[in-house]
Amino acid sequence: MAKLVFSLCFLLFSGCCFAFSSREQPQQNECQIQKLNALKPDNRIESEGGLIETWNPNNKPFQCAGVALSRCTLNRNALRRPSYTNGPQEIYIQQGKGIFGMIYPGCPSTFEEPQQPQQRGQSSRPQDRHQKIYNFREGDLIAVPTGVAWWMYNNEDTPVVAVSIIDTNSLENQLDQMPRRFYLAGNQEQEFLKYQQEQGGHQSQKGKHQQEEENEGGSILSGFTLEFLEHAFSVDKQIAKNLQGENEGEDKGAIVTVKGGLSVIKPPTDEQQQRPQEEEEEEEDEKPQCKGKDKHCQRPRGSQSKSRRNGIDETICTMRLRHNIGQTSSPDIYNPQAGSVTTATSLDFPALSWLRLSAEFGSLRKNAMFVPHYNLNANSIIYALNGRALIQVVNCNGERVFDGELQEGRVLIVPQNFVVAARSQSDNFEYVSFKTNDTPMIGTLAGANSLLNALPEEVIQHTFNLKSQQARQIKNNNPFKFLVPPQESQKRAVA
Amino acid sequence: MAKLVFSLCFLLFSGCCFAFSSREQPQQNECQIQKLNALKPDNRIESEGGLIETWNPNNKPFQCAGVALSRCTLNRNALRRPSYTNGPQEIYIQQGKGIFGMIYPGCPSTFEEPQQPQQRGQSSRPQDRHQKIYNFREGDLIAVPTGVAWWMYNNEDTPVVAVSIIDTNSLENQLDQMPRRFYLAGNQEQEFLKYQQEQGGHQSQKGKHQQEEENEGGSILSGFTLEFLEHAFSVDKQIAKNLQGENEGEDKGAIVTVKGGLSVIKPPTDEQQQRPQEEEEEEEDEKPQCKGKDKHCQRPRGSQSKSRRNGIDETICTMRLRHNIGQTSSPDIYNPQAGSVTTATSLDFPALSWLRLSAEFGSLRKNAMFVPHYNLNANSIIYALNGRALIQVVNCNGERVFDGELQEGRVLIVPQNFVVAARSQSDNFEYVSFKTNDTPMIGTLAGANSLLNALPEEVIQHTFNLKSQQARQIKNNNPFKFLVPPQESQKRAVA
Amino acid sequence: MAKLVFSLCFLLFSGCCFAFSSREQPQQNECQIQKLNALKPDNRIESEGGLIETWNPNNKPFQCAGVALSRCTLNRNALRRPSYTNGPQEIYIQQGKGIFGMIYPGCPSTFEEPQQPQQRGQSSRPQDRHQKIYNFREGDLIAVPTGVAWWMYNNEDTPVVAVSIIDTNSLENQLDQMPRRFYLAGNQEQEFLKYQQEQGGHQSQKGKHQQEEENEGGSILSGFTLEFLEHAFSVDKQIAKNLQGENEGEDKGAIVTVKGGLSVIKPPTDEQQQRPQEEEEEEEDEKPQCKGKDKHCQRPRGSQSKSRRNGIDETICTMRLRHNIGQTSSPDIYNPQAGSVTTATSLDFPALSWLRLSAEFGSLRKNAMFVPHYNLNANSIIYALNGRALIQVVNCNGERVFDGELQEGRVLIVPQNFVVAARSQSDNFEYVSFKTNDTPMIGTLAGANSLLNALPEEVIQHTFNLKSQQARQIKNNNPFKFLVPPQESQKRAVA
Repeated sequence: MAKLVFSLCFLLFSGCCFAFSSREQPQQNECQIQKLNALKPDNRIESEGGLIETWNPNNKPFQCAGVALSRCTLNRNALRRPSYTNGPQEIYIQQGKGIFGMIYPGCPSTFEEPQQPQQRGQSSRPQDRHQKIYNFREGDLIAVPTGVAWWMYNNEDTPVVAVSIIDTNSLENQLDQMPRRFYLAGNQEQEFLKYQQEQGGHQSQKGKHQQEEENEGGSILSGFTLEFLEHAFSVDKQIAKNLQGENEGEDKGAIVTVKGGLSVIKPPTDEQQQRPQEEEEEEEDEKPQCKGKDKHCQRPRGSQSKSRRNGIDETICTMRLRHNIGQTSSPDIYNPQAGSVTTATSLDFPALSWLRLSAEFGSLRKNAMFVPHYNLNANSIIYALNGRALIQVVNCNGERVFDGELQEGRVLIVPQNFVVAARSQSDNFEYVSFKTNDTPMIGTLAGANSLLNALPEEVIQHTFNLKSQQARQIKNNNPFKFLVPPQESQKRAVA
Repeated sequence: MAKLVFSLCFLLFSGCCFAFSSREQPQQNECQIQKLNALKPDNRIESEGGLIETWNPNNKPFQCAGVALSRCTLNRNALRRPSYTNGPQEIYIQQGKGIFGMIYPGCPSTFEEPQQPQQRGQSSRPQDRHQKIYNFREGDLIAVPTGVAWWMYNNEDTPVVAVSIIDTNSLENQLDQMPRRFYLAGNQEQEFLKYQQEQGGHQSQKGKHQQEEENEGGSILSGFTLEFLEHAFSVDKQIAKNLQGENEGEDKGAIVTVKGGLSVIKPPTDEQQQRPQEEEEEEEDEKPQCKGKDKHCQRPRGSQSKSRRNGIDETICTMRLRHNIGQTSSPDIYNPQAGSVTTATSLDFPALSWLRLSAEFGSLRKNAMFVPHYNLNANSIIYALNGRALIQVVNCNGERVFDGELQEGRVLIVPQNFVVAARSQSDNFEYVSFKTNDTPMIGTLAGANSLLNALPEEVIQHTFNLKSQQARQIKNNNPFKFLVPPQESQKRAVA
Repeated sequence: MAKLVFSLCFLLFSGCCFAFSSREQPQQNECQIQKLNALKPDNRIESEGGLIETWNPNNKPFQCAGVALSRCTLNRNALRRPSYTNGPQEIYIQQGKGIFGMIYPGCPSTFEEPQQPQQRGQSSRPQDRHQKIYNFREGDLIAVPTGVAWWMYNNEDTPVVAVSIIDTNSLENQLDQMPRRFYLAGNQEQEFLKYQQEQGGHQSQKGKHQQEEENEGGSILSGFTLEFLEHAFSVDKQIAKNLQGENEGEDKGAIVTVKGGLSVIKPPTDEQQQRPQEEEEEEEDEKPQCKGKDKHCQRPRGSQSKSRRNGIDETICTMRLRHNIGQTSSPDIYNPQAGSVTTATSLDFPALSWLRLSAEFGSLRKNAMFVPHYNLNANSIIYALNGRALIQVVNCNGERVFDGELQEGRVLIVPQNFVVAARSQSDNFEYVSFKTNDTPMIGTLAGANSLLNALPEEVIQHTFNLKSQQARQIKNNNPFKFLVPPQESQKRAVA
């Protein structure tokens, strides 16, 4: 990480502009935190094809961090309906694989069905064209810019579990700090409306009892009159009614089940999965290969989708929108006895420079420790993927505001500059940490390359009121940089 | 527009930095809007030479959008006194023509009176020098950076009507979000003080009754003591008193009448108006031509005013500060049956990259529709210039927060991500829409190149619970991109 | 200054991006200021080796400016313990000289003790390595980025007096707007906690009475458990306890005295001080020279510390972090009868582009005046270093919100766009003005190159309702640009 940060700073500094933080500050007092908790989701919305769980964004730590967190589970053949949000989103795939699409306004529809000129006489289905479709798999980080609509689909048996944050304090959000999801279809409420009503202390126009009864018309198209929809889409009244959601039976919700499975043009993945994982890493979404098995397989045409990075083709329309940081990818920090850390910053994953967000995947061996450290320029939202760890967080007054276990599925928010250290309690503690800066920097307090290691010995001595010998020990005893192996193995290692 | 946005994104992306939004978010809850209204100005301040009308910036939609709106009418020979504001301003000329000046600190005075060496003995008036003067005409958009003083003058019979927004949520404004106008002269109150007092709940130092009686000393120079003014300007006490406004008779206000007309050195426009409009468009303020009729006509000297764009001369001092987007200019979107749209972004009009604002002029034929669309990254402040239209706005909960007519002279605020559609009710509905981002992006929901058009057919089918045939109709029936002709002509067109 | 601003704008404009303001706006109403005061520090914290005084950051003008101000006095051999803050800091050295260090995470330890291979057998102290150490002296401006830890030491007899602002409204601060200092060591409270408790209206976990009794554990390391510290530092329990501050006797506070003086590797300064001041100016911290007298003298090795500016070496790790703007440096504005002004912007001092702050040192001769002017894009925090001046500040309503003396050691906040003028009351009034923008621009209202000077004469005439002759006097009488000599000498000069 030290080197990472270093080269990163270097590049930024020699360029004409800094990657400056661009986030709204929280309201007054919201970061005067005396006590943090490891939080479970506190709301659960069942859908036909899965489940959305949310954390209350009005909780003080979430208000301080300025983000909204949710977790979405897609069962087999489940389609998450297209939606967009009032802030940039990062989605981490905790489990499963599938496909997703993002609709970037103004970009061409570069995925085209093959034409079938021969088969006449059978009212051939006209050729379909749509924007790029991406594969995703466990460990992927997906970047969704503000206002860009996306959908997601699970075509496997394993449920897809995706954890996502919306950065509502991003300056890209010109609305207030409440998270808002705009669904293109369906009659479900957007999942954060509940909290908005709590916060605002007012009732939505539809009234409480009405919500229970009708609960219709949650999508943005449902808000327009039939007349407008007929005119805009050049369709008849029945289709316009369907656009509004009239044909929906009961609460299907935001995730619907596609009976028989979704059939769209997409690059093949199954064959590619046979390739060694390491190769596949970077190239997976770049070079869709056509092996003739998939009936829809078609090499995307046109320069827009060739995805070479020659500075001309590198437009927003072909921007890479996923990046794998999971267990199998090549880590940035690695110590077989202690664990590994993989980061995705705007250098690895340029789309993040637009979101001004980044993420870090970490894995800690039992009893290994991530040394006390702080984020210089970001809040950190740590979500435990696997196992459990003992974590301590300290604020500017030296108060230990968190001292407890972070278990799988729970989240802990560490505000900027607060100091945090962790020790794994299980064989393999895995976490993903979302950071509110696209080039986050961390400062470690112990170990090689740490702040204390970079201070003159005499300054340590007099600052901590120590003997010279003790200062030297503090400065030099720990030879590890970020991750310290369990004390026993460490003693063996340095012995 | 699709292409516009596309090429725009491309340029930004290949450059080193994104045009990132740089605006303050509104306070909590201020965008939780259940109901919008088409608003008239609610205050009216008469001046000697014209009229200033304002909209209350404390209204919830204005607070959400973070802007203050006003409309200024200048009668013949009316001079709007110089002032500057605590945020960037965009001024749209709804009617009339005239001249304006902007005083950029540190820039040279490049407009110089001709020297008159021959005529001796008659106490020749010394040569005057001042900064650049610009012509303006109907349809012009004028960019005024934060803190830069400007004045405006109407030298024609037609009253000048100018609509302007101050972006008080711009990060260039480091004060709080109240709009403030600092007048260099006069004893009028700044036009937004009234609302500030309401909001703040406190009285200005001068007290309520005093305001009625004296109402003196509104200008920034009036606040200094005579002694300071005498010293700073090296003038005698009487002139210092006049600087403070002592010589003002009664309430002249912010707009004064210049008896006999204002005589300043300015480039000729009358001759140029003879040229075809299209040529004049871009060049008008670039190449002032001297045809020997105007006594003050003088080619501006010095490299600063040559206005070539070779990357060296392109300094702030010669930056183009007006750009025509009115009816006569070449539109970006055009369909003779439906209407036209012209946008000014920081690509067409580089000064906007400094303001982080943009604008769009639109004209809709009777019964033509602007399809449902949303702004990905901007609030939109729509001011109706001419005619009336039926507009619908939908929020994230699918609630129709506006469904009504927008008439000439009224304003409707559409917050970021809210979906809006419009249908003209009159032969020619014209509007100007100010947007709080210098590279605004819109996503359309219906028609060619829309979000629904870019989704795979099967995703539409299952998302909206439709038959395959219906999904195809939704995706493909409307062949128009932004503006849809009236349904009758449309049927004829597609038939 | 006019030229300065000019060239500055030019450079920025031809580059790809503007130096856009990046600060949070204050809460609503906080800049609706009817009355300003010249403020003394209102809290005083004695330490073993010195004194820290603070101004209440909850005062309205400080809230409006979004900064926190403090003054630190270091006696001989006093060491300010390492700390970092939640916003960028600018430190101005009012008096004294000494050394400071800044610990930039990820940067190499480039200062190395000489190896002593010969002297064996005496348990040779191992070679120490640490990050760069800087000399500072009176008039230096030191830039400390958000979250970067620094320490400071006085090795002379003259007490060091340093005035510093923390820009809590900087967007680099993602926490709320309270200033926070994170101490690496010691058991003192951070100096702004007191105000935080006032503001928040809540008590810290430790309770009021406890604070009186124990007042322990203010440092960030003290918040961790012994077990964590032992593991992280690989030290025994006693050293871990000392890291927590157990070995501290009584309230040493944030500044400790180093008995016998601090011995660290640092570049020699005493020899350099013999060089003429002007030469030394820019090069002092760039070319540490080794003259063989200092036992620790050692040329820093490695490309990181060669400090050539070839675009490759210019990394964050070797970034220049101090810049002298004091009395002895070469001024930007100079008039022997009136005074001088020296500015440090991100053009002179590139580190400021990261802080988005700048500073100005001014010196006014008796009865000389700084003409009425305003900051277009910054708040100004004026701290009087020496002498006293009569200052007037006017707001947008023409109200004189300050009209009084600013004396040595007091501070006056002039919000953005407010107009200010000053006249020295003592032989030499000196001030430093911190500005909340790295490329501040000022507009003068009187004198050559002022706004009124750049307006056409006729516009002045009709705007101020004057005779032509009077308008000419206002425009041209004062030939000075920023600083006007005393009226007597001025009369002599222009006569």
